[in-house]
Amino acid sequence: MIRFENDYTEGAHKRILERLWETNEEQTPGYGTDEHCEKARAYIRKACDAENADVHFLVGGTQTNTTVIASVLRPHQGVVAAISGHIAVHETGAIEAVGHKVLTLPSEDGKIQAEQVKELYDAHWNDVTHEHMVQPGMVYISHPTENGTTYTRAELEALSKVCRECGLPLFLDGARLGYGLVSEENDLTLADVARLCDAFYIGGTKVGALFGEAVVIMNDALKKDFRYMIKQKGGMLAKGRLLGIQFETLFEDGLYFDISRHAVDLAMMIRAAFAEKGFSFRYDSTTNQQFPILPDEVCKELGKKYSFSFWEKAAEGHNVVRFCTSWATKKENVETLIEDIRAL
Amino acid sequence: MIRFENDYTEGAHKRILERLWETNEEQTPGYGTDEHCEKARAYIRKACDAENADVHFLVGGTQTNTTVIASVLRPHQGVVAAISGHIAVHETGAIEAVGHKVLTLPSEDGKIQAEQVKELYDAHWNDVTHEHMVQPGMVYISHPTENGTTYTRAELEALSKVCRECGLPLFLDGARLGYGLVSEENDLTLADVARLCDAFYIGGTKVGALFGEAVVIMNDALKKDFRYMIKQKGGMLAKGRLLGIQFETLFEDGLYFDISRHAVDLAMMIRAAFAEKGFSFRYDSTTNQQFPILPDEVCKELGKKYSFSFWEKAAEGHNVVRFCTSWATKKENVETLIEDIRAL
Amino acid sequence: MIRFENDYTEGAHKRILERLWETNEEQTPGYGTDEHCEKARAYIRKACDAENADVHFLVGGTQTNTTVIASVLRPHQGVVAAISGHIAVHETGAIEAVGHKVLTLPSEDGKIQAEQVKELYDAHWNDVTHEHMVQPGMVYISHPTENGTTYTRAELEALSKVCRECGLPLFLDGARLGYGLVSEENDLTLADVARLCDAFYIGGTKVGALFGEAVVIMNDALKKDFRYMIKQKGGMLAKGRLLGIQFETLFEDGLYFDISRHAVDLAMMIRAAFAEKGFSFRYDSTTNQQFPILPDEVCKELGKKYSFSFWEKAAEGHNVVRFCTSWATKKENVETLIEDIRAL
Amino acid sequence: MIRFENDYTEGAHKRILERLWETNEEQTPGYGTDEHCEKARAYIRKACDAENADVHFLVGGTQTNTTVIASVLRPHQGVVAAISGHIAVHETGAIEAVGHKVLTLPSEDGKIQAEQVKELYDAHWNDVTHEHMVQPGMVYISHPTENGTTYTRAELEALSKVCRECGLPLFLDGARLGYGLVSEENDLTLADVARLCDAFYIGGTKVGALFGEAVVIMNDALKKDFRYMIKQKGGMLAKGRLLGIQFETLFEDGLYFDISRHAVDLAMMIRAAFAEKGFSFRYDSTTNQQFPILPDEVCKELGKKYSFSFWEKAAEGHNVVRFCTSWATKKENVETLIEDIRAL
Repeated sequence: MIRFENDYTEGAHKRILERLWETNEEQTPGYGTDEHCEKARAYIRKACDAENADVHFLVGGTQTNTTVIASVLRPHQGVVAAISGHIAVHETGAIEAVGHKVLTLPSEDGKIQAEQVKELYDAHWNDVTHEHMVQPGMVYISHPTENGTTYTRAELEALSKVCRECGLPLFLDGARLGYGLVSEENDLTLADVARLCDAFYIGGTKVGALFGEAVVIMNDALKKDFRYMIKQKGGMLAKGRLLGIQFETLFEDGLYFDISRHAVDLAMMIRAAFAEKGFSFRYDSTTNQQFPILPDEVCKELGKKYSFSFWEKAAEGHNVVRFCTSWATKKENVETLIEDIRAL
Repeated sequence: MIRFENDYTEGAHKRILERLWETNEEQTPGYGTDEHCEKARAYIRKACDAENADVHFLVGGTQTNTTVIASVLRPHQGVVAAISGHIAVHETGAIEAVGHKVLTLPSEDGKIQAEQVKELYDAHWNDVTHEHMVQPGMVYISHPTENGTTYTRAELEALSKVCRECGLPLFLDGARLGYGLVSEENDLTLADVARLCDAFYIGGTKVGALFGEAVVIMNDALKKDFRYMIKQKGGMLAKGRLLGIQFETLFEDGLYFDISRHAVDLAMMIRAAFAEKGFSFRYDSTTNQQFPILPDEVCKELGKKYSFSFWEKAAEGHNVVRFCTSWATKKENVETLIEDIRAL
Repeated sequence: MIRFENDYTEGAHKRILERLWETNEEQTPGYGTDEHCEKARAYIRKACDAENADVHFLVGGTQTNTTVIASVLRPHQGVVAAISGHIAVHETGAIEAVGHKVLTLPSEDGKIQAEQVKELYDAHWNDVTHEHMVQPGMVYISHPTENGTTYTRAELEALSKVCRECGLPLFLDGARLGYGLVSEENDLTLADVARLCDAFYIGGTKVGALFGEAVVIMNDALKKDFRYMIKQKGGMLAKGRLLGIQFETLFEDGLYFDISRHAVDLAMMIRAAFAEKGFSFRYDSTTNQQFPILPDEVCKELGKKYSFSFWEKAAEGHNVVRFCTSWATKKENVETLIEDIRAL
Repeated sequence: MIRFENDYTEGAHKRILERLWETNEEQTPGYGTDEHCEKARAYIRKACDAENADVHFLVGGTQTNTTVIASVLRPHQGVVAAISGHIAVHETGAIEAVGHKVLTLPSEDGKIQAEQVKELYDAHWNDVTHEHMVQPGMVYISHPTENGTTYTRAELEALSKVCRECGLPLFLDGARLGYGLVSEENDLTLADVARLCDAFYIGGTKVGALFGEAVVIMNDALKKDFRYMIKQKGGMLAKGRLLGIQFETLFEDGLYFDISRHAVDLAMMIRAAFAEKGFSFRYDSTTNQQFPILPDEVCKELGKKYSFSFWEKAAEGHNVVRFCTSWATKKENVETLIEDIRAL
């Protein structure tokens, strides 16, 4: 069985494991105060062109989203997100569990637009009973989205502008950030993201690390006491250096982007193969997740040799499925898949 | 200005004030352990034909909903409700603030149906990633709904059946319960409500009391330690007898139903007047809230003399507005209004 | 049975009931936006000599404490309180239920002192692992305390100074504030309280009202969006005017203080009677709660005719008990009690 | 600088890193559903002599404590713990953040005894105002404690018995469990722990793993839906196999106990060296943490070459400090330390 079902099926990029070996006997202080974390922070600040950014390392995505959102909002506020946003759907109510409603906006492709945020904001404040409703307190987006789509620079500029006008911190979930930033149609840089968002995270788990997410806080007002929040929400790793070492390796010479490119190149090959064969796609993704719409029999046939995930029912006898590549995907496996697609 | 904007514009029914006078110097123990509370509980149990019911008195609706829901659910569970449900919209995120997601179902009229609950339940358990999603843990309905509509006995039987099959406690928000039970088309009794729901509350605030809601818990599994929950959530009135006295008065000889009938009769007169004039209604309500769709100029004209609430925009130049009657509405005011409607 | 067990055994002061009668048929908007609330706010601002104060009305004490504290603290912060503080002991974990630890300080008499707060604050910030501990975020005191004791002006000045130096908002629970401000030894005015605290509440439930507490927020930084918090925590009474009318009555011409004096005068008579008889007291209270230490047989004897509450075991065969007076206590009942004490 | 300041200064045991290498390219499903996790679960069940145990893997200690406690308690309940318990002191209020009070018991050495639990339980239920107080809902102990001390089998039997009589689930924090089970004076086996506790965790982070804690749930009533809780609280690692591989390695042939013994043997050597020199100890620890009481000048002298942690002030001019060993501590470093102690 060759697995394309998600982007966390393997361990870590070889260079990361090597560095864990090399540093294993070093004695370091705990909780992210060691030199590896310091170096990783410096590399990330540089990559973001943001000398004043606060950079923190947490273990996983749900934890990171929860910690950031809990830190930013007051109790009567909610976080605005696409109806398909990870925090709205797939975190077992983690945001509600820390007291906050996810205020969802309709979305066909996983993205939300500046005007939608403005409308929701105005609707709240124009309602005479607004004190009886959850106040929008921040905006959450993911880039790429859960559907593989990406924001253009113009879209992110517009979102950022509206958010600042409305006093809503903009938080970007970058669980797959690398795969977005290297995609063909992308016109955003990491520095753009840093400039336009109040906080965001650079995903490690799905982009070469064993685990780990790097939170970057740009807005000074959101920086205070964040380490308390990490500790309380269970994200402060005793051996914090494990996170430092991984992000140091990913960012010291661009490895993060190299392995992102590898994954996206392979995803584009898979996409092309399905397209050539006449299959259409549920979302127009140029990143590492592809969502072809396949007839039942094709699913069955490919399912004998490959694992991929069922996404949703499409028209009679058809399914939307998801094929993921990652930093770890082997080119030969993709080639075999393509042959099999062609042979359908 | 004659007010029809809501059903809590006046104080309390005269007989309640009289009883508060008469009992004012009595010395009673606190926190709902006095004899008035005991009597009120007995009257309510009788009215519900439910000798084993636990009856508790709380101050207001948001508090009651929050306390019941927080008491029933485990942290990973959510409460299923209509998208227009009070807990989903107008409680400033009180449910989320105690850790729970409101799992909303689409609804045109404020009601949800048994099949919708079953579908949502099945969708959860059939999803292979269900552990990543909020588990449906109970069902919340309001009767009458926020739109003035009511459940038929058949509908409530069906909902109750599905809920029991799925192991989902059914909780009915009866903030306006009286107005539902006396409506013309209603075929439900209080005993039916008690038999079909696991918990519900009988609203006092909007039906003759100064304030107060009587929670009735039918399901033994939900009874344990509920008084701790009331205290923690701020609903345990020091002078609990104030609640006991009010519900004693409302239920000792049917006052609750008499004054409900008064309000609904007047609402039907208003409804008829608008209908005669050719106006249509946003919801088909037979209870104390009426939602005519009125042109801007009619709103303006009537707005000079009457207060009513804006509900939402309708077609170009039209608005849905809400007229409420209550136990306190004066017949002469309604007659004046009707004349003015006719004169439009 | 003549009840001295607590200060909420009766209904409300006669003038309050009269006003509820008189205003009963008035139609007012809901949720504290009516004219009675406006007037009550104006009277209270004047009594506090604080034109810029925000004044809000809530229903009960636990609710008020929870709402204020939840509004002020960030998630990693706790509230500093005496180990005997109401929030630490008798609110069923309401503060923890909204996410915050109560950081308790030892206290023999219910009071805490400026130096204790400073020490705790310094201990936190001097600890190298402080990010692993709950950060002190505000200070809670009660005046009079749960033990009937009161702060002197010098003590409150000192506390206020330390709190401001440390950036810790000072919140005063005034459930029995009237009884403290009229006590013989008291040198604090309501204006002092307003000047020295960041927020406090003026208790109505125990001082003549049916129910209700008036929150006064002095610190501008704590004012924002407080009404959202009231709604979310279940304290926004639909018929908000009920609270407005009560506080209007209590503060328009000093009734609040008159009835407080009545209670304290009677308490002093009881105190003197026990003292004359040679009994000592657990706390040195000059307010409406008295804590004599009585032998078992005296408890038994007095218990035949009077209800009072057991506080704690004292030396072998002795008990600390509590006698409360209130605005409603009848002088003749106190005189009878005193005779019976003398006759022991 | 040779570090004895804590037991998480290095990476992981060599065999664990080797296994991560070997398995790195394996493709596995996520979230703990892979074969390594299955094997690790089987090994642990066997080591616990508990075929029906549920075994789950989480990332860190605070997260594990929070997840278990949040899963067990209802909102009005608290968790009983020693005043020095990790959850009471060093988790930034994580337990309060999920809504629960930590009900602390006095303790001189980090342990609590059966009678203390019984007393607290009885005091709660005998108090007539118990509904106004947090109800004890479970008991938390750590073994070894934060002070290095351990429970005897008799003590744990007694605690377990009282907990079962009172209906209080007993949860044991085993962050350093290995170091307790191999200590000289220990008479508990892992099977005893499993038999006597309702839930516990076997710490990996401090005992050879990179990170990771294995939760063992023995009580059937506590098993339901625990994976939802792990996900919600941020503990469900995408690459769950990383935890499985580590615990598989630690438990397939007793490595966990071997490396625990190594650490404890070295700790005993350090203890003996200090004792020979006439220093006394703050706690009587036979595990990997030692708490000698040292004069300022000794601290200064040793501090030039070794890092250890300051614990608290002792008598004038003396300090309690902590020396930790671990699976990673080098014998030669301990020998050097001992020489330096002797040379003082």
